[in-house]
Amino acid sequence: MSLPMIHILNGPNLNLLGRRQPEIYGHETLDDVGRDCAALARELGVETALFQSNHEGGIVEMIHTARDAASAIIINPGAYSHTSVAILDALNTFDGPVLEVHISNIHKRESFRHHSYVSLRADGVIAGCGTLGYQLALRRVVALLAT
Amino acid sequence: MSLPMIHILNGPNLNLLGRRQPEIYGHETLDDVGRDCAALARELGVETALFQSNHEGGIVEMIHTARDAASAIIINPGAYSHTSVAILDALNTFDGPVLEVHISNIHKRESFRHHSYVSLRADGVIAGCGTLGYQLALRRVVALLAT
Amino acid sequence: MSLPMIHILNGPNLNLLGRRQPEIYGHETLDDVGRDCAALARELGVETALFQSNHEGGIVEMIHTARDAASAIIINPGAYSHTSVAILDALNTFDGPVLEVHISNIHKRESFRHHSYVSLRADGVIAGCGTLGYQLALRRVVALLAT
Amino acid sequence: MSLPMIHILNGPNLNLLGRRQPEIYGHETLDDVGRDCAALARELGVETALFQSNHEGGIVEMIHTARDAASAIIINPGAYSHTSVAILDALNTFDGPVLEVHISNIHKRESFRHHSYVSLRADGVIAGCGTLGYQLALRRVVALLAT
Amino acid sequence: MSLPMIHILNGPNLNLLGRRQPEIYGHETLDDVGRDCAALARELGVETALFQSNHEGGIVEMIHTARDAASAIIINPGAYSHTSVAILDALNTFDGPVLEVHISNIHKRESFRHHSYVSLRADGVIAGCGTLGYQLALRRVVALLAT
Amino acid sequence: MSLPMIHILNGPNLNLLGRRQPEIYGHETLDDVGRDCAALARELGVETALFQSNHEGGIVEMIHTARDAASAIIINPGAYSHTSVAILDALNTFDGPVLEVHISNIHKRESFRHHSYVSLRADGVIAGCGTLGYQLALRRVVALLAT
Amino acid sequence: MSLPMIHILNGPNLNLLGRRQPEIYGHETLDDVGRDCAALARELGVETALFQSNHEGGIVEMIHTARDAASAIIINPGAYSHTSVAILDALNTFDGPVLEVHISNIHKRESFRHHSYVSLRADGVIAGCGTLGYQLALRRVVALLAT
Amino acid sequence: MSLPMIHILNGPNLNLLGRRQPEIYGHETLDDVGRDCAALARELGVETALFQSNHEGGIVEMIHTARDAASAIIINPGAYSHTSVAILDALNTFDGPVLEVHISNIHKRESFRHHSYVSLRADGVIAGCGTLGYQLALRRVVALLAT
Amino acid sequence: MSLPMIHILNGPNLNLLGRRQPEIYGHETLDDVGRDCAALARELGVETALFQSNHEGGIVEMIHTARDAASAIIINPGAYSHTSVAILDALNTFDGPVLEVHISNIHKRESFRHHSYVSLRADGVIAGCGTLGYQLALRRVVALLAT
Amino acid sequence: MSLPMIHILNGPNLNLLGRRQPEIYGHETLDDVGRDCAALARELGVETALFQSNHEGGIVEMIHTARDAASAIIINPGAYSHTSVAILDALNTFDGPVLEVHISNIHKRESFRHHSYVSLRADGVIAGCGTLGYQLALRRVVALLAT
Amino acid sequence: MSLPMIHILNGPNLNLLGRRQPEIYGHETLDDVGRDCAALARELGVETALFQSNHEGGIVEMIHTARDAASAIIINPGAYSHTSVAILDALNTFDGPVLEVHISNIHKRESFRHHSYVSLRADGVIAGCGTLGYQLALRRVVALLAT
Amino acid sequence: MSLPMIHILNGPNLNLLGRRQPEIYGHETLDDVGRDCAALARELGVETALFQSNHEGGIVEMIHTARDAASAIIINPGAYSHTSVAILDALNTFDGPVLEVHISNIHKRESFRHHSYVSLRADGVIAGCGTLGYQLALRRVVALLAT
Repeated sequence: MSLPMIHILNGPNLNLLGRRQPEIYGHETLDDVGRDCAALARELGVETALFQSNHEGGIVEMIHTARDAASAIIINPGAYSHTSVAILDALNTFDGPVLEVHISNIHKRESFRHHSYVSLRADGVIAGCGTLGYQLALRRVVALLAT
Repeated sequence: MSLPMIHILNGPNLNLLGRRQPEIYGHETLDDVGRDCAALARELGVETALFQSNHEGGIVEMIHTARDAASAIIINPGAYSHTSVAILDALNTFDGPVLEVHISNIHKRESFRHHSYVSLRADGVIAGCGTLGYQLALRRVVALLAT
Repeated sequence: MSLPMIHILNGPNLNLLGRRQPEIYGHETLDDVGRDCAALARELGVETALFQSNHEGGIVEMIHTARDAASAIIINPGAYSHTSVAILDALNTFDGPVLEVHISNIHKRESFRHHSYVSLRADGVIAGCGTLGYQLALRRVVALLAT
Repeated sequence: MSLPMIHILNGPNLNLLGRRQPEIYGHETLDDVGRDCAALARELGVETALFQSNHEGGIVEMIHTARDAASAIIINPGAYSHTSVAILDALNTFDGPVLEVHISNIHKRESFRHHSYVSLRADGVIAGCGTLGYQLALRRVVALLAT
Repeated sequence: MSLPMIHILNGPNLNLLGRRQPEIYGHETLDDVGRDCAALARELGVETALFQSNHEGGIVEMIHTARDAASAIIINPGAYSHTSVAILDALNTFDGPVLEVHISNIHKRESFRHHSYVSLRADGVIAGCGTLGYQLALRRVVALLAT
Repeated sequence: MSLPMIHILNGPNLNLLGRRQPEIYGHETLDDVGRDCAALARELGVETALFQSNHEGGIVEMIHTARDAASAIIINPGAYSHTSVAILDALNTFDGPVLEVHISNIHKRESFRHHSYVSLRADGVIAGCGTLGYQLALRRVVALLAT
Repeated sequence: MSLPMIHILNGPNLNLLGRRQPEIYGHETLDDVGRDCAALARELGVETALFQSNHEGGIVEMIHTARDAASAIIINPGAYSHTSVAILDALNTFDGPVLEVHISNIHKRESFRHHSYVSLRADGVIAGCGTLGYQLALRRVVALLAT
Repeated sequence: MSLPMIHILNGPNLNLLGRRQPEIYGHETLDDVGRDCAALARELGVETALFQSNHEGGIVEMIHTARDAASAIIINPGAYSHTSVAILDALNTFDGPVLEVHISNIHKRESFRHHSYVSLRADGVIAGCGTLGYQLALRRVVALLAT
Repeated sequence: MSLPMIHILNGPNLNLLGRRQPEIYGHETLDDVGRDCAALARELGVETALFQSNHEGGIVEMIHTARDAASAIIINPGAYSHTSVAILDALNTFDGPVLEVHISNIHKRESFRHHSYVSLRADGVIAGCGTLGYQLALRRVVALLAT
Repeated sequence: MSLPMIHILNGPNLNLLGRRQPEIYGHETLDDVGRDCAALARELGVETALFQSNHEGGIVEMIHTARDAASAIIINPGAYSHTSVAILDALNTFDGPVLEVHISNIHKRESFRHHSYVSLRADGVIAGCGTLGYQLALRRVVALLAT
Repeated sequence: MSLPMIHILNGPNLNLLGRRQPEIYGHETLDDVGRDCAALARELGVETALFQSNHEGGIVEMIHTARDAASAIIINPGAYSHTSVAILDALNTFDGPVLEVHISNIHKRESFRHHSYVSLRADGVIAGCGTLGYQLALRRVVALLAT
Repeated sequence: MSLPMIHILNGPNLNLLGRRQPEIYGHETLDDVGRDCAALARELGVETALFQSNHEGGIVEMIHTARDAASAIIINPGAYSHTSVAILDALNTFDGPVLEVHISNIHKRESFRHHSYVSLRADGVIAGCGTLGYQLALRRVVALLAT
């Protein structure tokens, strides 16, 4: 029997993770994040798959794909958190748990980063926990899927 | 002699029409919309072609195409209505009639849906008339082309 | 058996329709609107009656009348759209479909015309379609009554 | 010797009281309110008279009448609370006590109902006490007239 | 040959002029204003007629009347200055000069009196000159009609 | 059988009632209020107990106590009305009727007194009725408990 | 016996009057204004003197001078109306009547021209009456000095 | 050698956890939270102690205590998140890691819950993960202490 | 004969003065402040007593105490400056001079520190003068008491 | 050896000090201020020089002069506090201590007086201490120069 | 030895340059811009390459490419200037000089065009200089690279 | 035949250029700017003259002078950019090209520097290009004069 699948979606500039502004985002790359999550997933009895796009429409379509292919979504929408109603609308078509992750604490940065459209749909929001935030979100998702 | 061509452009998440949140958007699919509009178009003596993209840039480029290929545009910009200056700018390069359609009455929903950049260019706006709104827009476009 | 009755209510200054600022409002008079709607109504199997008042309280009372006498309301609240909570409250006492019509595209005009209290109750809103907007609204109302 | 007269003025849509949205406004009609207040008035040694108008100007003129005919005003301005400077100005010409009544708790409803121009003049404001609010206001008015 | 006719329109509560809050509005009644203006009009070679209504719709209709009957309008919209888009719209249908008069200096009073919709159409605005303001407006109107 | 108990909670500075700013708050002390309410309670077939604290946390804990000990709450939150989300949250845990009382008409005072967090939960709000407001609230509470 | 002296103070760019943007400001020069006012002054039994400065501090000092030398001030503060608290403060030290004049109707222009600090002190405000506005102000000043 | 100590501070109404509004806050009590965290702490090689106060000043003083007694703080400030600058100031005197926890997703609730003063100091923020959020915060704190 | 007594009240976190963030608040402790003020008081012929509380309600009650025990209040409300209407209300019950002190220049810090409710009552405000500010306030208080 | 020089700069209308609105500003003239400060300066071992200008540019240039000639600046910018970025910029070019003085408590006056651009640069701000404020500022400046 | 490479990035609708709204954007095409810049580049001793995309994500990726391939970026973000945090974030990962160009003066157009996220990162901004703006930016970039 | 004359106007504090805050404004003095511009002007076939004033009125008058003496204006309004409507009004009387220069990128600084009244009139705006910005503006001006 197949394990529950969790899609980990990543927004613009996150392909540079670990290579840009490490004082804000740390030294782990997105591949590291994917590997760490996959390892924790095995431990928790689920599967994960990680995707990234710099295109708003690309993320919308990833969410459409997750409608059929995933039980839950972990999403770090990057800068689109603050500007994309389209991603919010796409998430509104998804029925399973949605966890929102921000590597930095967006509430300590410029005021235009304080609001996230995705938070209007997310079940939980984890910010400022570095790349560990993805794993914390994974733990929460698994707890939600178990209930 | 060829009939006047009207392009019907659709924004993000509208590919899911009829399959997501039917209590808001109804049960008709985008294909149904295309078919209904084509039928009405024949009756009114025009032609229609329907397009959809989840990408803001994709819609911008559809509008660029319409500059050469269409006499009028009917556009349901979806979530990009509220956030896209680029689509407004693209429409500003188009000379024919522009009708804006929203399936739901956006004025009864969250406040960030109350403003539409596209309305700053549209000749008419039809909201909350369900998928019938496309046909109402088509009737108006034909009336405008006839004057 | 009597046909469904639809009341078409018109707000302040609309008695001047066709005679004031034709570059904004066109050359059709309110009588023309009434005649065109009545003709279309016959075709669609309903009846219409058209009223106009320059008084906010007058429109409130027209809506009270419609509670008993009409199956649906088409309303062009004119300037009271932007300022009248009383008309909204009256419409909130009406159970049938409500369609809001604006002859011009109010979203392209002064910012105080961008908000309509009536839209908070209306099922659909049609703006910027000229006097044809009344007929488009009538088509939508008939579709709603049929469901 | 004649008893002090208290005018109870009611704004738009209150003629429908008891017949519209009973989950918000209850089942008592405005006639019931008038009868209950008259009974309590007798008990407290005053007289009451109840008026209603759907017209902003009508309420202005009721207040002008009260300048000569009444010792105090109890007013439920309905929707005009939120939009009418004219009623505020009329009340500013009245010298006796003014009590403002709202049947529902307007502070729990849409934000445009949170502000009342009439409150800028009223001596007291009673909201969310149902139709009993009129009687509470009457008790307060009588206490003020006694001092 | 008939003299140019100037309509002097007055809004809510101005029927009480001279009898309410004389520390703000002075002791002249509206009849006094009418008589003083008529006298000055004769001197300047024009005619005046003075009207008053407490109803927003009443003022709208006075303006409709003035479209046919008057060469210019002097208007003291009272409290409706701050809340009525309908009166603005009515004035927008009038072609001659429009002068706006406020007896008190509205800019020194509550902030909701600082904005006037009527000023968006008026050719000139005179505030805080007491009832003399009507005569100053009349002088300006006559100068405008002479050009 | 015990009578229904109603807790009357009072916020900061109300211990000074009758001794501070009598032009705003009158000459009755909080003890007078308690005695008057107790007398009226007996007449209406209920019991009252009156509490006061200058501490936001103290009021939160009074409400926790009322969860077990009282059928209804009458609360004059004083200055904490305008600033305390904690008191609102505490009231949200209470199931019975909640009436909010302000001795003065807070809507006529500084703008920061116009908003009350407590009003978002209160069933009714009575302001500007002096210390009589407590008794009016008591009458309303008893009516609600009777339904 | 000397006649009452009225100082007419003019702000920045008004030295160009009649030479710049005549479609807004007309063709009369500031010298013409001075001459017309002087003539009317003689007729009304007062004297006038006209000053102009492009410097905010210069206008402040003109007002200081007027404290000793003038019975009343007519001031067209030009652009400083909208930005100068210093001029307001200077006028607050002046005891006689102050009339504010704007040649154009500032309420129809950019929104930053809608607010005038000077209006917070002025007894009357005349806008949009062209250069005739100075004479209207003079009439009002004389009426005020006569009371 | 003693283990690192982590203080878990809880704000107003959290003593009712598990007993109020379980649809928002779940069925776990604060004792459960303390026990679960202590168990996880042992597993991760640290110690935890849990405190609660309904008093803003009480939380300020808990933080003062933690300055000497704890290596890190996990804080659920409850309603004080949105209103307390004093707690922010206290946290600004603390040198170790600070994690902020909200049981519900505050960004989906009333707008006054969207802003948290504590987030301006917190290293990380976890919201909407239920009582599991405390454990996720604990994992993050331990990771931070290890670096 | 007893000397005039001046109470020096201090708000939250000021018990840490000299031990937290010395780059903002300096190295003097609150005890040092008390000693320095007492010394200066003797020199100026008055007495001082210094109090501190981390509780908003505690400060309210200190002010109540001062009503009987002190001729003047010097208050550093700390973070409660920006959030406490209750302290403002308490100060409004105090008749003598009130001086407000902030050790840092709050106008150069975060925008939520720019507004102080206490300033609405204070006779004078001294900010950014370090702990010397208390002594400057004392000098001002003595001057006021002497007039 | 020369004593440290402190320039005391004064903005618009302060030349009228002692002669205008004594209920706000007291009876001391600017000359009195200069004499009192000079006396205190001698006592504290420094020198002072006092300047005044009604011109924004004049104050800018006084600050330029102080760059070479003074060790510290005490400035009462008067009305320019609220409107002048130029004075802020000039002060930003000055390296020594800057103390800002307002004779009245600007926080109790009109809202446009609550913000001061100069406070963004000032080391300390003293408001509402009357003309004594200059001497308090002088004491602070001397303390700062001594460190 | 290779010359420094400068990437010239262009946003949505700029592929239509020279063909749309020439009264705003002029008659030069983007190819003309590329050729003119290349010519000037040769003269100044650098190389340029010009790119365009209608996709926000496409521009993000162009900037990622420039991280390795270019010494400086000249960017005309078109409509994305006003809405894209993602492009700002991408530019924040780039270390060299960034010049922002707008062909029209965006500050004279609709208010939503007055703010640019890109300006928060750009070293310089050139607006309203037509297509010559690209060459001016190139001159500035070369000067920056030379220092 | 005389060459076209271009006036380069400079606002407050720019006389200190090169001597204040070189990390923001660089080391070039205003004399250097004048010399560099004059040299480039000769090369481009025009003449330049450079002026500076710390007075708002002084700049207004420089612009008046330029009406007769110059073909174009390059203006760095310094801090007056953000506060002066008078300078905007003066520029509105000038018919030739106007280029606005800011040495620093004002959009990256405090928010009150983001808006410039002068930009509402300027044909082009160059910010953040250091003192080279003047030369870039000169190139643009010459291009405009050539068309």
